[in-house]
Amino acid sequence: MYTVQAISEAQLLRLEDLREKVNVALRTLIQREVNKGAGEVAKLSGEILLSGGKRLRPLLGIFCYEVAGGKDIDEIMDLALAFEMIHTATLIHDDINDAAKLRRGVTTLHERIGQPKAIIAGDWLFVQGYGLSGRYTKECIDLIREACANIAVSEFKQLDHVLDLSTSPEDYLDIVRGKTAGPFAAVCESAAIIAGASPEQSQALGRFGMELGIAFQLMDDLLDLRGDERMGKPRGKDVLEGKMTLPLIHSLTLLHGERRRHLAAILNNFNDGLWDELMGLLETSDSIMYAESLMLTHLERAIHELDKFPSSMAKSLLMQVAENVHTRHD
Amino acid sequence: MYTVQAISEAQLLRLEDLREKVNVALRTLIQREVNKGAGEVAKLSGEILLSGGKRLRPLLGIFCYEVAGGKDIDEIMDLALAFEMIHTATLIHDDINDAAKLRRGVTTLHERIGQPKAIIAGDWLFVQGYGLSGRYTKECIDLIREACANIAVSEFKQLDHVLDLSTSPEDYLDIVRGKTAGPFAAVCESAAIIAGASPEQSQALGRFGMELGIAFQLMDDLLDLRGDERMGKPRGKDVLEGKMTLPLIHSLTLLHGERRRHLAAILNNFNDGLWDELMGLLETSDSIMYAESLMLTHLERAIHELDKFPSSMAKSLLMQVAENVHTRHD
Repeated sequence: MYTVQAISEAQLLRLEDLREKVNVALRTLIQREVNKGAGEVAKLSGEILLSGGKRLRPLLGIFCYEVAGGKDIDEIMDLALAFEMIHTATLIHDDINDAAKLRRGVTTLHERIGQPKAIIAGDWLFVQGYGLSGRYTKECIDLIREACANIAVSEFKQLDHVLDLSTSPEDYLDIVRGKTAGPFAAVCESAAIIAGASPEQSQALGRFGMELGIAFQLMDDLLDLRGDERMGKPRGKDVLEGKMTLPLIHSLTLLHGERRRHLAAILNNFNDGLWDELMGLLETSDSIMYAESLMLTHLERAIHELDKFPSSMAKSLLMQVAENVHTRHD
Repeated sequence: MYTVQAISEAQLLRLEDLREKVNVALRTLIQREVNKGAGEVAKLSGEILLSGGKRLRPLLGIFCYEVAGGKDIDEIMDLALAFEMIHTATLIHDDINDAAKLRRGVTTLHERIGQPKAIIAGDWLFVQGYGLSGRYTKECIDLIREACANIAVSEFKQLDHVLDLSTSPEDYLDIVRGKTAGPFAAVCESAAIIAGASPEQSQALGRFGMELGIAFQLMDDLLDLRGDERMGKPRGKDVLEGKMTLPLIHSLTLLHGERRRHLAAILNNFNDGLWDELMGLLETSDSIMYAESLMLTHLERAIHELDKFPSSMAKSLLMQVAENVHTRHD
């Protein structure tokens, strides 16, 4: 089992300092676009962008850049912002497609301003994010393009698997690699390239991002089964939407006969009143525990990739980010 | 008044040859993505991309590149494809937002595969298009980002002006510059930059694109008032959607008293049964003729920008493209 030391005061300060740097840079960018006449689309997209979020992708980019030997944060900041803006764009479009009412406890954009403007606001953030990557080499831009295209490819697959009770763990991992883990890998690998790392080092950090991203999504699946009203995250949202998360896939695979039929019936007609029955069946098949173990395996693999790099503040912070995946609540 | 010579056999062959080159390159790109495992999203986006279209933006890019002294079409092809893919992405998202049933006489993507996949297919094309621009300089990428961001800004404004009968010609031009003419200007100017043209030359071709784009949109407005069932373009679609096109704005400005109230009532409750009354009022205010004259003015201005460049096949073809804006039917 992997172990990560408790975060030190200095690490915590550095983490908060960088998160604030990212927030300031995002605010500045939005303000610049508003000043240039982008008006309402920049204001509204900016509100969503600045309404919270852990800035996980930017922080991963910055820490990987430093772990790979990069010294000038200004050199990596545009990449960090690009991934955050692209991520926010996909959230806005996802929320439309999921007909979601809330995001981080706040009314979703399409609920506030209507679907047409929300689609366009997502497009605008996409363009801004993609445009920010224009200062880097073709190699980096290709990595980003590949990752972003794969988000779309995987979202298609995910839609095809809605309420498909025969979805396999391989289908699941395939979707997760494209939708969540691929962008994590891309920000880590391209940050290393920008820092001037060797191909071996860049690829190791790419694998770190991929494994971390898989763990992150597994945790997301688990959180959906816990829910957290404080975070505006109602429990069972994925189940309600027919998304085949790993605990469900695992349980459907293990259960047989009457129990499997019962689980299938619950998933096909889910409502919150069926919650206790669902949790009982998942417990019978140890599916929550299985997903937790698998998440820890991927976290371990992620951290293992960092072995190749010398100790540093940035490396400790990367390990903290990994630890936070495990302990996060939203 | 400007005059353009009839197209010669050689010009026609060159035009068709290049259009086919663009089509082949688009098909190859889609096939490569399908082969790489992009699957359904690439196939469906590819179908829309390859289902027709005049390839106006790619052709403008190629001709401007040549007019500006570029010699190697392979150098400009990615830019040409990028603009076509981004354009198609905006069409898919626009069709969702307009709840359009048909595009080029064919059922729209969201009608065939549902809105969620259609939004994502648009995103995929956006990413592909944007990614293709990654091989060019930051100056070019910034031009493209600016143009794409302005599409979103202008679409927001357009939505705000739906059925706003006080929309002014200035509001209209502002929207058209961002939504239609800006991307024309960007493909022309960036193609010139890639060809190694001087800033003066590149900006002249940028202005050529801007003026041509304004003329193109004015023609689009006029075609909506003519309609063409063969092209799958029903008449009065813009009117039905409450889009404030120039002939309507002009007529609302000129008419007074009872006639203006009548026009306002027609626009607020439009259906095809009110067609003849609408056309009668537009005729009273000479608004169709006004929009046509304005279109010709912008075409003239566009062609005037080409004066600075020596005669060449590419220049003749650019003038033909301008002429086609005037004579087009869809």
